Amino acid sequence: MSNSRLVQQIQFVIEIDKLKGVLRQTLLTDGSRQENSAEHSWHIAMMAIVLSEYAPAEVDVLQAVKMLLLHDLVEIDAGDTFCYDIKANQDKAAREEQAAIRLFGLLPMEQGNALRSLWEEFEASETATARWAKALDCLQPLLNNQQTSGHSWQRHGITRAKVLDRMRSVELGAPTLWPFVQQLIEDCVVAGYLQTEL
Amino acid sequence: MSNSRLVQQIQFVIEIDKLKGVLRQTLLTDGSRQENSAEHSWHIAMMAIVLSEYAPAEVDVLQAVKMLLLHDLVEIDAGDTFCYDIKANQDKAAREEQAAIRLFGLLPMEQGNALRSLWEEFEASETATARWAKALDCLQPLLNNQQTSGHSWQRHGITRAKVLDRMRSVELGAPTLWPFVQQLIEDCVVAGYLQTEL
Repeated sequence: MSNSRLVQQIQFVIEIDKLKGVLRQTLLTDGSRQENSAEHSWHIAMMAIVLSEYAPAEVDVLQAVKMLLLHDLVEIDAGDTFCYDIKANQDKAAREEQAAIRLFGLLPMEQGNALRSLWEEFEASETATARWAKALDCLQPLLNNQQTSGHSWQRHGITRAKVLDRMRSVELGAPTLWPFVQQLIEDCVVAGYLQTEL
Repeated sequence: MSNSRLVQQIQFVIEIDKLKGVLRQTLLTDGSRQENSAEHSWHIAMMAIVLSEYAPAEVDVLQAVKMLLLHDLVEIDAGDTFCYDIKANQDKAAREEQAAIRLFGLLPMEQGNALRSLWEEFEASETATARWAKALDCLQPLLNNQQTSGHSWQRHGITRAKVLDRMRSVELGAPTLWPFVQQLIEDCVVAGYLQTEL
């Protein structure tokens, strides 16, 4: 064991503690406060385990869990970008690219490159595993929004059409969950949590 | 797909959001607030990935990650029990047993039993995978304590001997990390973060 190698890895472990301070638009289900990106990542990794029977056959569960655990690390430098914020999403890729260089660069090179590749696979959303991971990353805030009477939808004037469009990643990556998600969205409309278009 | 099965699983996913509200004695590395058990679980699952090369050969990485993600779920009902609190640890097992019955009981029976078995494996700490997971569960608060100048040690009058005793789980489950941990503890003593015995 090279001690300098372990020291690099421990520095990375300490650095990523900062993800606990990155706040998202979504509230906890009890409405008490905004969720942070570390606990969000925990939640969707748990979903990848609990809902694994709905994953398409080509999905690698361990890779999906790894991907979900690390997919938001770049937010330590780049911040959380609200998925419906068009302006902030314009330079999101460039900000996150710089963050990836710094953060994964803290690790021994081959290990940093491997974890960065996993993040890039998630972002590119071209493999079954990445699409499944994306679907869960979208489904969890939908559930939390439903549980908080549509808090972040109402706060930002998000309508049914925008949510449906956003949730296409579920249709694409977790097709067996799509009917459930469609029904949930309609239930939120009926409950008055989500507005339809004018 | 049985819809009632999925509804049970989604109810479980919503229920476990409550782990984000369970506070631990450890502070975040920036000292800003207490850590919660969901983000702690995320952090140690990331450690299981980043430090996997130090795991004994018999360790199953996916099982370890699953175990770490769910090991604290029982705290939703039973609360976090500070590892150095002798009195609270006396009825910890009974409180957590009741919590496990309720929480894993939310899931379809065979799935709830499988996840509960994984939690029991962690608690029993008899397999290489469970011992590795326990080691990481102990190592993370050590790092956060070091980063916050020994906050929870000082607050509760925890001495070097108690920390060394607690960290025997690293010696047992992650022996290649043990020299690093011993050195870290000595560094904390030298820095004045951790008191030696009278």
